[in-house]
Amino acid sequence: MEIKSIKYDYNNMMSAYIGEKEGIKPKELSAVKAKAIEAHEYVAKNRGKGMMGWTELPYNQKEIVEDIIFTAKKVRRSCEAFVVLGIGGSALGPMAVFQALCHLRHNDLPKSKRKAPKFYVEDNVDPERMKSLLDILDLNKTIFNVITKSGSTSETMSQYLIIMDLLKKAFGDKAKDHIIATTDKVNGSLIKIAKAEGLKTFFIPDGVGGRFSQLCPVGLFPASVLGVDIKMLLKGAGFADRSARKADFKTNAPLISATLQYIAINKGKNINVMMPYADSLKLMADWFAQLWGESLGKAVDLNGKTVYAGQTPVKAVGVTDQHSQVQLYTEGPFDKVVTFIGVEKYREEVLISGGLDNVPNVSFLSGHTLNELINCEMLATEYALTKNQRLNGMITLPEVNAHTIGQLLMFFMLQTAYIGAMLNIDTYNQPGVEEGKNATYALLGRAGYEDKAKELKSRPEKCPNYIVK
Amino acid sequence: MEIKSIKYDYNNMMSAYIGEKEGIKPKELSAVKAKAIEAHEYVAKNRGKGMMGWTELPYNQKEIVEDIIFTAKKVRRSCEAFVVLGIGGSALGPMAVFQALCHLRHNDLPKSKRKAPKFYVEDNVDPERMKSLLDILDLNKTIFNVITKSGSTSETMSQYLIIMDLLKKAFGDKAKDHIIATTDKVNGSLIKIAKAEGLKTFFIPDGVGGRFSQLCPVGLFPASVLGVDIKMLLKGAGFADRSARKADFKTNAPLISATLQYIAINKGKNINVMMPYADSLKLMADWFAQLWGESLGKAVDLNGKTVYAGQTPVKAVGVTDQHSQVQLYTEGPFDKVVTFIGVEKYREEVLISGGLDNVPNVSFLSGHTLNELINCEMLATEYALTKNQRLNGMITLPEVNAHTIGQLLMFFMLQTAYIGAMLNIDTYNQPGVEEGKNATYALLGRAGYEDKAKELKSRPEKCPNYIVK
Repeated sequence: MEIKSIKYDYNNMMSAYIGEKEGIKPKELSAVKAKAIEAHEYVAKNRGKGMMGWTELPYNQKEIVEDIIFTAKKVRRSCEAFVVLGIGGSALGPMAVFQALCHLRHNDLPKSKRKAPKFYVEDNVDPERMKSLLDILDLNKTIFNVITKSGSTSETMSQYLIIMDLLKKAFGDKAKDHIIATTDKVNGSLIKIAKAEGLKTFFIPDGVGGRFSQLCPVGLFPASVLGVDIKMLLKGAGFADRSARKADFKTNAPLISATLQYIAINKGKNINVMMPYADSLKLMADWFAQLWGESLGKAVDLNGKTVYAGQTPVKAVGVTDQHSQVQLYTEGPFDKVVTFIGVEKYREEVLISGGLDNVPNVSFLSGHTLNELINCEMLATEYALTKNQRLNGMITLPEVNAHTIGQLLMFFMLQTAYIGAMLNIDTYNQPGVEEGKNATYALLGRAGYEDKAKELKSRPEKCPNYIVK
Repeated sequence: MEIKSIKYDYNNMMSAYIGEKEGIKPKELSAVKAKAIEAHEYVAKNRGKGMMGWTELPYNQKEIVEDIIFTAKKVRRSCEAFVVLGIGGSALGPMAVFQALCHLRHNDLPKSKRKAPKFYVEDNVDPERMKSLLDILDLNKTIFNVITKSGSTSETMSQYLIIMDLLKKAFGDKAKDHIIATTDKVNGSLIKIAKAEGLKTFFIPDGVGGRFSQLCPVGLFPASVLGVDIKMLLKGAGFADRSARKADFKTNAPLISATLQYIAINKGKNINVMMPYADSLKLMADWFAQLWGESLGKAVDLNGKTVYAGQTPVKAVGVTDQHSQVQLYTEGPFDKVVTFIGVEKYREEVLISGGLDNVPNVSFLSGHTLNELINCEMLATEYALTKNQRLNGMITLPEVNAHTIGQLLMFFMLQTAYIGAMLNIDTYNQPGVEEGKNATYALLGRAGYEDKAKELKSRPEKCPNYIVK
């Protein structure tokens, strides 16, 4: 396979193309260059340390990759359905890579045409959804991968309890053959349980948080079960990482991209729209939404100053959302940056074959391919946004394959690390979710949360006038 | 079935609950009351007129509903897959109702457990996606429903050309038995084609735009094929419509909801998060995103004044997005209104059955149900947002069923109509998408678009320095 780089085109972020009023001026870019270089240095200096263990994943997993591939092969042969029990980073990455690199209707293909088991990722605790899963699974032919670093994620552990109970009732001692755990090597509840039950286990390395975990066993094992070339995925990630070694806007795509977003945020663009023109990349926008939202959405900066930082990610898909969101993007408030993700060469070509000579506003389509149509529509939307002075950039993948997806994952993680450093926040924590977790424990009557339960009870009564039926 | 109303709780929009700084004060509400009453009057006066034909759909479709049910029964019996070819409003409504009211893994169920054909909605022109669809369909056992009012929607008509060509090659004269058209009764290309080909046809009534079309044959026919009780859906919509007859904040939920959003927009809340705590309602948030984004995102108001109106819809799902977006919602900028959609009674109950007495941060879950867990998590998230002074409201469905979904659809459409009137914009047009459409035609070399092609060619060259590989 020929190695080709993804590219990032930011012409339409700049004043020369988008106009002086909205566009970013070269002098604005120059003004933050020192900050960008500082952010680059910070990331370079902290690579592999603290919560930045993810930067080394393309390079330090040789043995584990062999174990993953070996185990994945066995799993692929021995089950008809493979189910991930996980939420947040333990679900979004596996889903995104599955959709990008497997057949778009993988689960709908007849068994003879599928080279891997059906794939399900369960990232909610909706009882209707859990029941619907049990309705369609043959437990005998199903393997589960429970993923949580701490083992105390209520959602995932609830699912584990339900499934393990069913497996034990069905298979007794053999239940353990149906569950593989991905968790911390030493700490937490899941490793404790896995040891007691004798489960096959993969480990989440230190310094790799949920939303940065797709390139460790969290993402690699499901991908490998599905037949994805995970060595190539890591190669792509390493390729993108090495392209970003210099603090140079001309060669470091994630750095210039982070810098432009930083400027845009300071100009009041509080919305970040990610709009791939490919169904295969739809869930990549979902994965990105967690990465961006959870990393940058912080109340205080590293000096303890209140900042309420963050930019809200919005997921869109081209051309679909042209018929839903583009009216707003073109005519609504000037509050967004839109990033298109284009594909140079789709893996299929479909000719618009039929003809209708007597219907001119349909017949002009005949003889074109869907490939031409989707590409023209992307360029046309880019043109329309630009004409309306809306900031937009474009990432182009030469093709969607394991290497370019590896690049894209690393591009987004580096971009996030850079902008986090520029914003002077802790990119890797998520203190804001603790309040809700503790309230959940209190509402469920967990021991130790009695004070929180009291606090919840002491809230003012809701006003019945403010409830309308 | 007992008729129960959905309810809207806006306590956490108000200063008494969310604090003086962020909360809406009763006097702020009083200050816009006259405007709200005016908007209500405008909607009441224009019901059924111009582009407000949708208000009458619960009442004026008796005969057409019988035809739909009759045809749907035949279709359900005679095919194994039913495919909608449509985009925007012709896709989002059918998908939302399917997900809300059918089994959550409908297509994965074995044929013996499904009472309706498999269901696919094709709302993109990605060649990989189209090819993947053809990979899994048996044309012999498939019926297509092509939906476009004008018949000039490039995406849908491209799909039609491809599919009709395949059907004619496979079945000759019998091809027409595999396609049903939903379009305008008199005007446009699709009705012309349908007549020439002898297709069974349903009509989209005058005054019903794409994003307001779910309660006409656009949405009703697919729903009926899938076994949804469409009479009950319309009853629910009528029920919600009649509840909104008075301009009274105490009884008119969509009016108070629109008014609060109007105030919030004026306070700079440019993001509207819709967060159902039910997988079955996930695509309802997608349908809402088009309704809200495309209706309110307008550059000029009815007086021709430049306003750049709009509020960006964001789709989230509870509890899933607690592990992705809630960090941002809790700690990020004060730029959002979050609306939860809760469900009082899920259609299934799942017990967290297993036990792990020696692992206290897991064992407390045992004995609870997923129903309790998801509800506690929603209340806990509501509490965390409120404690952090984030505006939030809650819509509660007694249960997800045809009646409450009908109510919810009408609630959102009325809310949109009210706020559009308050913003003094044309809620029903979408001029901003014309630019992109015309550019697409020009790029594809369509006759009559030569000037646009010239304009596109005359754009300044992109600067290669602003393209990073």
